[in-house]
Amino acid sequence: IMLLLHRAVAPGLQQAYRLKSTPARLCIRACCTNDSFQPQRSSFTFSGGNSSTRKWRVMGTLLGLGAVLACHDQQCRASQESPRRYTREEVKSHCSPETGVWVTLGCEVFDITEFVDIHPGGTSKLMLAAGGPLEPFWALYAVHNQPHVREILAQYKIGELSPDDKAPSILKTSDPYMDDPIRHSALKVNTQCPFNAEPPPELLTENYITPNPIFFTRNHLPVPNVDPDTYRLNVVGPPGGQSLCLSLDDLYQFPKHEITVTLQCAGNRRSEMTQFKEVRGLEWSLGAISTARWAGARLCDVLAQAGHQLCETEAHVCFEGLDSDPTGTAYGASIPLARAMDPEAEVLLAYEMNGQPLPRDHGFPVRVVVPGVVGARHVKWLGKVSVEPEESFSHWQRRDYKGFSPSVDWDTVDFDSAPSIQELPIQSAITQPKEGEIIGSGEVTVKGYAWSGGGRAVVRVDVSLDGGLTWQVAELEGEEQRARKAWAWRLWHLQAPLPAGIKELNIVCKAVDESYNVQPDTVAPIWNLRGVLNNAWHRVHVHVAP
Amino acid sequence: IMLLLHRAVAPGLQQAYRLKSTPARLCIRACCTNDSFQPQRSSFTFSGGNSSTRKWRVMGTLLGLGAVLACHDQQCRASQESPRRYTREEVKSHCSPETGVWVTLGCEVFDITEFVDIHPGGTSKLMLAAGGPLEPFWALYAVHNQPHVREILAQYKIGELSPDDKAPSILKTSDPYMDDPIRHSALKVNTQCPFNAEPPPELLTENYITPNPIFFTRNHLPVPNVDPDTYRLNVVGPPGGQSLCLSLDDLYQFPKHEITVTLQCAGNRRSEMTQFKEVRGLEWSLGAISTARWAGARLCDVLAQAGHQLCETEAHVCFEGLDSDPTGTAYGASIPLARAMDPEAEVLLAYEMNGQPLPRDHGFPVRVVVPGVVGARHVKWLGKVSVEPEESFSHWQRRDYKGFSPSVDWDTVDFDSAPSIQELPIQSAITQPKEGEIIGSGEVTVKGYAWSGGGRAVVRVDVSLDGGLTWQVAELEGEEQRARKAWAWRLWHLQAPLPAGIKELNIVCKAVDESYNVQPDTVAPIWNLRGVLNNAWHRVHVHVAP
Repeated sequence: IMLLLHRAVAPGLQQAYRLKSTPARLCIRACCTNDSFQPQRSSFTFSGGNSSTRKWRVMGTLLGLGAVLACHDQQCRASQESPRRYTREEVKSHCSPETGVWVTLGCEVFDITEFVDIHPGGTSKLMLAAGGPLEPFWALYAVHNQPHVREILAQYKIGELSPDDKAPSILKTSDPYMDDPIRHSALKVNTQCPFNAEPPPELLTENYITPNPIFFTRNHLPVPNVDPDTYRLNVVGPPGGQSLCLSLDDLYQFPKHEITVTLQCAGNRRSEMTQFKEVRGLEWSLGAISTARWAGARLCDVLAQAGHQLCETEAHVCFEGLDSDPTGTAYGASIPLARAMDPEAEVLLAYEMNGQPLPRDHGFPVRVVVPGVVGARHVKWLGKVSVEPEESFSHWQRRDYKGFSPSVDWDTVDFDSAPSIQELPIQSAITQPKEGEIIGSGEVTVKGYAWSGGGRAVVRVDVSLDGGLTWQVAELEGEEQRARKAWAWRLWHLQAPLPAGIKELNIVCKAVDESYNVQPDTVAPIWNLRGVLNNAWHRVHVHVAP
Repeated sequence: IMLLLHRAVAPGLQQAYRLKSTPARLCIRACCTNDSFQPQRSSFTFSGGNSSTRKWRVMGTLLGLGAVLACHDQQCRASQESPRRYTREEVKSHCSPETGVWVTLGCEVFDITEFVDIHPGGTSKLMLAAGGPLEPFWALYAVHNQPHVREILAQYKIGELSPDDKAPSILKTSDPYMDDPIRHSALKVNTQCPFNAEPPPELLTENYITPNPIFFTRNHLPVPNVDPDTYRLNVVGPPGGQSLCLSLDDLYQFPKHEITVTLQCAGNRRSEMTQFKEVRGLEWSLGAISTARWAGARLCDVLAQAGHQLCETEAHVCFEGLDSDPTGTAYGASIPLARAMDPEAEVLLAYEMNGQPLPRDHGFPVRVVVPGVVGARHVKWLGKVSVEPEESFSHWQRRDYKGFSPSVDWDTVDFDSAPSIQELPIQSAITQPKEGEIIGSGEVTVKGYAWSGGGRAVVRVDVSLDGGLTWQVAELEGEEQRARKAWAWRLWHLQAPLPAGIKELNIVCKAVDESYNVQPDTVAPIWNLRGVLNNAWHRVHVHVAP
């Protein structure tokens, strides 16, 4: 049994100890499922626990039981000699308690149905891997790469993957997205093309620094495949001046600046806005926000090298990505020159994310990082930088990523009437427990994140268990923030006793930043036709087990 | 009849025309009140329209009527030859429709009871002067200084002030406040000692720049009486360096910097918080906010002259006022060195307010002006500036002007757990119509102000007439704001038609700043034991005349 120390898993561990002697019993079950019912076509497998498949399984279990009881011991041990073969498709269909929970590691297949509830990291986290490979998750949580963990897993082995079974490839050559990178299976996909996905709440606040593979991804277009050797960044010089054409090596020559910055999509938590009234936009849950350690050249250094300086008249630094639509129009955005030239604003041309070269989904080889500013301005696959008297003429600068009054609809909207979103307002959300969850009695642990734009530090998070009538102050975790340069979020938690007999909780969180800005109580008054800027109190309703 | 063009006074003007022939009638009334009832003691005058004084007046009116009808013409015209004499005390007692409305100009006394309702500037504004001198108001609104206005007024003259009647002086020599300056009578006084007062809503948003005499005043201690010739500002030098000892002339040698800045007290709108639950603090309505054009030396220039520079470690600029309590403890506050040294933050050592030397109530001869920051840090009567590794140890920096969770009370408060308020959150309020007012049918004009801390521009004000169910966008007035350096408020208005038959309006306003921060819906969740930082939606309930 794993003895990994993990917050708030005491009940799980107790269960694990109680079930110490289960492996043999588990093996019976695994063999049963195996022997008695082995469909060859995925359309016929346990696709969702509907009544007919359930009937089949019960019959199979009954029929096979005698034989299994006789042979299970030797089968379990013999599985390495003559392994049973499964397709990835079959494994994928075992992804719920009803169908059984299978996972793979390398070419080995495991039925971990009985282990799910005693996983020290929690059931919901393990279920993220159900029906697929463990590697992406073990890569995130290195604690698994230990001999005793592999030993435990070995007890659940039921066979191996068919040697000739490759991951399905349905890409067509005409598909502009065919060259997109492979993504981590934990990501909750909003749209595949362009790829937009967020980490699940269980993983989002597991680490102060979001691991690269599950960092939320917001792509507007196909991912360009950039050759780092031939990559050049075009920095347009001032009128009469010379432009720079920088290779990656040239960029490395600038002083390397490293900062931890949280990125958030303007559409984060849009799905809550949609519940009030329809909007146009991706149905982000609360995971369109992530934090990384970024390194690169400071934009102010590069601009200075190109001969730019701060001027009194209005000016903007325009960015163009190397991603483009079928007409050749590139993604673009801009920020005010004053922010770009301010060394204290720490705007980066980043080439590293958490000590690695940028992943392709996050802008390889170079992206802009604008601390405290909406994700849309952090242009990825950066191709061109110029200083202009006006904001970028890009669709995404002028006809999107703006906030409007709830009274404005698609017939009346005047995009020129609102400023483009730059700094974001104070935000927070609850990542644990989840909506509708049944939690244990006695006490509750509430976890979440809080962040504000413009470098404003989070000074307090209030949590209510009664829908906002009374409040408790949550404990802020992790690194202290610098005043006025608090670019990264604060994770927080609250552990609170529950009154005996309480049946449900209406959990609410709201944060306060160093300018004492607070979140609004409700969504309706900040509703807007694009569903951006939802920073209303986050609410989670849970039931308490008797 | 006045023909002054004035917003939203159309109904008043119509009334004025209808009553064109009233002066003679008014004179009768004035003489009646005069002749028949002339108490000598203020305790016996029309102190509040209670039933016994009302009875007296009715009796007096009936008894005197015959005589008055016979003599009113010659009395009215003869008043200059043998003027009737009144004490200031008597005038003061005529301050409501029930007692009659008297005012003075110079030594002349006027009964303007009948004029109140036809005042082109509105009844409520004129009533601010009831029972006292007109000069302070005419000084604010120069439109009155015209011959035809004096002509109208002359018709209401009923006598003159007694030549030997001085303004009452009840100051005791032991009173530390005895030397406080005379204040404008329009100010709504919260506390007299120390003097804390705000302009009434009717005047607050009448001008983009608040006239000096009605600029809200927040004093913590008696007003020091500083001799400008001997005044010296002590700017402590860095360790090992020399301190500066600056006279006013020395300060004038620094480049003169001029900016328009709105100041707001952290306790503005506290009275709404009190309605939810008691707090400790002055009962500010919505007028603890005002705007002026300030001029002075930039703090960064003065600090640089003293040898200070920006350092990587935490540092604060501490200010000490020349005002002090009986123990000799001066008012004090501090701001982060980073803000003080940032030329873009435009922190001033101001010696001018709207083109005049600072009024004594506002810090004569020198005060700090910290754009975008809570009023409490704009230290008045500045005596000393120093750079310290920690915030000011002043009570007002460490044990006041901080925000807490609604769950914190005086038994549990830990002042060290919250940051001192610096930048303030987004704010807005309705100055017209007033709570409980009866407005005309057809349409409504809503007026107010909006402002945000930290130089964040106001990008939108939403107004609801139905308590927040639907919203309309208000029109922003006055000067455009600079992005990131929007130190001054925006005034706004909304003119909206009313559905026929509607009986009441629940007017609400909420503003959005350039970081898209919004105001919270309700007061209770931001309630705090000191009653600071109330920026919940402002709500006004009015009745609509049938």
